[in-house]
Amino acid sequence: MSGSIYGKIFKVTTWGESHGAAIGAVIDGCPSGLLLSEKDIQIELDKRKPSNSPLSTIRKESDKAIILSGVFEGKTTGTPISVIVFNEDARTKDYSEIKNIFRPGHADYTFYTKYGVRDYRGGGRSSGRETVGRVIAGAIAKKILKELGIEISAYSFDLELVVEDGDSVGGIVECVIKGVKAGIGETVFDKLDAELAKSMLSIGAVKGIEFGAGFKSAFMKGSENNDEFFNDNGKISKLTNNSGGILAGMSDGSDIVFRLAFKPTPSISKPQKTVDIQGNDIEIEINGRHDVCIVPRAIVVVEAMAAITLTDLVLRNLTARMDNIKLVVLS
Amino acid sequence: MSGSIYGKIFKVTTWGESHGAAIGAVIDGCPSGLLLSEKDIQIELDKRKPSNSPLSTIRKESDKAIILSGVFEGKTTGTPISVIVFNEDARTKDYSEIKNIFRPGHADYTFYTKYGVRDYRGGGRSSGRETVGRVIAGAIAKKILKELGIEISAYSFDLELVVEDGDSVGGIVECVIKGVKAGIGETVFDKLDAELAKSMLSIGAVKGIEFGAGFKSAFMKGSENNDEFFNDNGKISKLTNNSGGILAGMSDGSDIVFRLAFKPTPSISKPQKTVDIQGNDIEIEINGRHDVCIVPRAIVVVEAMAAITLTDLVLRNLTARMDNIKLVVLS
Amino acid sequence: MSGSIYGKIFKVTTWGESHGAAIGAVIDGCPSGLLLSEKDIQIELDKRKPSNSPLSTIRKESDKAIILSGVFEGKTTGTPISVIVFNEDARTKDYSEIKNIFRPGHADYTFYTKYGVRDYRGGGRSSGRETVGRVIAGAIAKKILKELGIEISAYSFDLELVVEDGDSVGGIVECVIKGVKAGIGETVFDKLDAELAKSMLSIGAVKGIEFGAGFKSAFMKGSENNDEFFNDNGKISKLTNNSGGILAGMSDGSDIVFRLAFKPTPSISKPQKTVDIQGNDIEIEINGRHDVCIVPRAIVVVEAMAAITLTDLVLRNLTARMDNIKLVVLS
Amino acid sequence: MSGSIYGKIFKVTTWGESHGAAIGAVIDGCPSGLLLSEKDIQIELDKRKPSNSPLSTIRKESDKAIILSGVFEGKTTGTPISVIVFNEDARTKDYSEIKNIFRPGHADYTFYTKYGVRDYRGGGRSSGRETVGRVIAGAIAKKILKELGIEISAYSFDLELVVEDGDSVGGIVECVIKGVKAGIGETVFDKLDAELAKSMLSIGAVKGIEFGAGFKSAFMKGSENNDEFFNDNGKISKLTNNSGGILAGMSDGSDIVFRLAFKPTPSISKPQKTVDIQGNDIEIEINGRHDVCIVPRAIVVVEAMAAITLTDLVLRNLTARMDNIKLVVLS
Repeated sequence: MSGSIYGKIFKVTTWGESHGAAIGAVIDGCPSGLLLSEKDIQIELDKRKPSNSPLSTIRKESDKAIILSGVFEGKTTGTPISVIVFNEDARTKDYSEIKNIFRPGHADYTFYTKYGVRDYRGGGRSSGRETVGRVIAGAIAKKILKELGIEISAYSFDLELVVEDGDSVGGIVECVIKGVKAGIGETVFDKLDAELAKSMLSIGAVKGIEFGAGFKSAFMKGSENNDEFFNDNGKISKLTNNSGGILAGMSDGSDIVFRLAFKPTPSISKPQKTVDIQGNDIEIEINGRHDVCIVPRAIVVVEAMAAITLTDLVLRNLTARMDNIKLVVLS
Repeated sequence: MSGSIYGKIFKVTTWGESHGAAIGAVIDGCPSGLLLSEKDIQIELDKRKPSNSPLSTIRKESDKAIILSGVFEGKTTGTPISVIVFNEDARTKDYSEIKNIFRPGHADYTFYTKYGVRDYRGGGRSSGRETVGRVIAGAIAKKILKELGIEISAYSFDLELVVEDGDSVGGIVECVIKGVKAGIGETVFDKLDAELAKSMLSIGAVKGIEFGAGFKSAFMKGSENNDEFFNDNGKISKLTNNSGGILAGMSDGSDIVFRLAFKPTPSISKPQKTVDIQGNDIEIEINGRHDVCIVPRAIVVVEAMAAITLTDLVLRNLTARMDNIKLVVLS
Repeated sequence: MSGSIYGKIFKVTTWGESHGAAIGAVIDGCPSGLLLSEKDIQIELDKRKPSNSPLSTIRKESDKAIILSGVFEGKTTGTPISVIVFNEDARTKDYSEIKNIFRPGHADYTFYTKYGVRDYRGGGRSSGRETVGRVIAGAIAKKILKELGIEISAYSFDLELVVEDGDSVGGIVECVIKGVKAGIGETVFDKLDAELAKSMLSIGAVKGIEFGAGFKSAFMKGSENNDEFFNDNGKISKLTNNSGGILAGMSDGSDIVFRLAFKPTPSISKPQKTVDIQGNDIEIEINGRHDVCIVPRAIVVVEAMAAITLTDLVLRNLTARMDNIKLVVLS
Repeated sequence: MSGSIYGKIFKVTTWGESHGAAIGAVIDGCPSGLLLSEKDIQIELDKRKPSNSPLSTIRKESDKAIILSGVFEGKTTGTPISVIVFNEDARTKDYSEIKNIFRPGHADYTFYTKYGVRDYRGGGRSSGRETVGRVIAGAIAKKILKELGIEISAYSFDLELVVEDGDSVGGIVECVIKGVKAGIGETVFDKLDAELAKSMLSIGAVKGIEFGAGFKSAFMKGSENNDEFFNDNGKISKLTNNSGGILAGMSDGSDIVFRLAFKPTPSISKPQKTVDIQGNDIEIEINGRHDVCIVPRAIVVVEAMAAITLTDLVLRNLTARMDNIKLVVLS
């Protein structure tokens, strides 16, 4: 039972391989009446394009988003929104070199073992290009959240820029979500932090997540870690935010804050030991168009997944109380 | 849309409040033909009982598991397994003191805001007692995994034991899963690490998770972080395990390794500032039966959630390939 | 992947076997703030009890519902509602006669083939007693619907009462749902009629369903079958209701009307040919406590499943429009 | 919470409107290693094209299927299969006439009420063109089933061909599924008949379904309706098939047989009363390209939905037993 659908109400399916004809997403569960244009999506997609920075791949794609369904006269209709991006720069390169080799740190070995077959062209489904679909859906989610007063911003800390020798680096990304009222997140399994942890760890290179004080809280005393409440001119507020805005799996009204660890890009041109499909020990050097550091381009993906996750949980919260239900049904 | 059901094939529902009549779990999707007795469950439940250590609460419950359905003549039948534990020590204490107060670090404020009502007796649904249901389901999952050669063990690192002054501490828990073949985990959203991150962060006090080299990998170079493959007497193996046994969201055949940050128990007897339900600034001291450190008792919960998550993903993997399907259907 | 959970938002799990210790249901997703007592459930459960009619089994159970969780101070809390009914009359009868025989029209053969094992005591999980869980959940659903102005009533047509010779009969049940506004039901797969068809066919003895003009509509012309709209003092109404209140998979504001075909109870005392577990051709007579006609007792089950299905779809409809979402979130 | 995804393991999402740029389906959960080409899909799509019969619409589309992902070197890879069909004949007709009118028997009124907006061009999402996506997915499901020895065929009974006066007719379709071993279908809610009922009633014009003896069984005695088992040269078989091949919600090894009632096409050119968006009583005549009888073109849709449903349940059955799981995992 595969896993290319995320969300329970705002359901996002991504499809497509790095070197197939196209890549895209279908969003089932976007409410009707949302203003949405291809431009809204394009703005986000452009953020994940390789920059001119020396950290980025030189693969160039215009990545033009085309809305195929679900939008009529500028507004969503409540039916599935299908968005497609054609792959332009899928070079008909010779992959015979990589075809039978399991690159260290890559999906080659696990995909092959799981499925008995893999699309070896540019990583196939495991390629970072899959995140095009996430960014598409994230753009729509951001539009919904904006109408509800919620904003998401992710950023990375200073990156070691000097990567002269064919190696790669990782990094830390922090994400802050503002404007979420208290009560978003579903006990006991689909907690806000649990769902964010899932959606963030589903991003290829992420190896860890922490909320608020995170791993530091393991070394704090209760009296240091507890966030005391106070009445902030009529609004219940907290003196500190060690919780990262999440208490008992629900938003507590403070900013939601989490940090992610990104591992270095596995594609490096330095020689590495590995095995081929027949099990022979070999040595390889991976040449090609790769990001020295994925972090700058991953930031919009982090925001996209945060937006998708939050949208789904905000929608899920609508039926939590009889009075909300009556408000809508009996109005 | 609530969230008390975990899993897609091995589906676990937990129910019950700290001071209700009983607490329990229903497991829908356990395969038939598994040897299962109440003793199998009891062994695990006993591990989460408060010990005689000064770190633990003095609430005493026998926590006797009773199987109500789904098992016949010592074997599972393929139908839902309902297991109940009656709450014995639900003291008819006076909760009027806590009833209208939002304790720092607790679920009081968020539950109240979300639902407009909360069972304030002992934390209600947000109590650690909810994990009884998880341990029940985890016991069953462990039995399945054992038959498939998979074993899970979690442990904590040295804890600061000196907590003399009514304060509390957190801690780090590491979990290792052995015996998982390569290929478990579903791209692109339901990755093995993504699902483990979700299930672990759904445990009350967990504030962070990292896999393998985790946060350290953010500061490593690709050449340091990549795990090189080699032929280990006919088996494809890795020289290092920075990946924590997970590549591209699937098990890679190595041990699966992750670490969790537990925050300190929010219940402390030191005075704390907070607000009451009317928004008045007040000061409280929480007295009662509480764990100074939840970590020792949480270890079996970590193992349980790991077992549930892994069982679900192992079962999900069965339909990944036509040849597996034919093997079963045409046999 | 088993199937004992129904619903996407109002999620009902039933568990339990005919002759196990108990039987019950867990409802995850009931909104908070609903007035609910054991009496509300008992009233419905009493309707499915065997009557004194000659059509009913003589098995007598008090079927007393006990709420174990999810209700506090008379109101639902938004957490899972666990309700249990202990099996009292699970006679320690000798089942050795039936144990190795596949009764015609019963679940014996299919359960055994699927699971390799079956609880042969009184039909185990396939027994009509499983509907206790459905009626419990249906009682809660009815309370929700009542607050939203929706009422469900099912009834049977004249039954042949004369069954003197150890045989059994079936019957037709019609169900009418009043008070559903237009727009309930989700395109394109989870249509209102599709979901009702599923939930009704999931009732043991149901072999067919038709909506509105149903099978007759296959022989009507479009001009006869189309329901013309008219302005009924400001409300859009229909001149006829051949659609059964469902257009394009959504409620159209008229009464929802469907009819079900129940097959005769398979348990008859007349001699029947069959095979045993070893494949030997044999002849059996089934003696024991059985309903000559299940229809009278099934009516409350039909209502229960209709209520569960409709509640789920009404809740699902809440997020269909941005303006509804804003109404709740920004209020 | 919308409903354009069907299936739990073999998950089918359809998207697209009648007069949008394209229409399509994404299938998540197709096992790897299945031989699949565009031709396999085209063969099925061609069956739903309007024929030259006087019963069919004269809208002409080549409906050419293009596989965009999930297939590599002629085989499925286990990743989502995205298939697109561009809409060619989406005439830029003037819809101003229909735009503000609720056509009797159509989706106009319910869509508008639910979403507050509707794509009125050719029925938008409610158009029969949506079934293109179903037929695509059905073609893939049929290929899987064929490898497992299962074949599906649907057919209609004699249709009244004489429809000279702008009216329309409905019809009965029967479907037979051969080669399904006993045990497919999940108790207690996701029964084989329950799932088939859902998927069939999700087809636009279907108003009823019955299995085996169906509505007739309501008037039979148990002794007439029960199918007696016998040993058919080593295979357990049945003397009759009133059950329609389904016992207790699972396949019983006999042919699965069900019948569907299709209502007449609501589009007729005869004058009809209705109301417009402002609530004015009006009279309309619907001219345009419409099927006088949808039944001939619906047959392949019935087969497609049957194939999708059965594939999903066959895959779901794989984890029913520990011995099956061990067979795959430990092999």
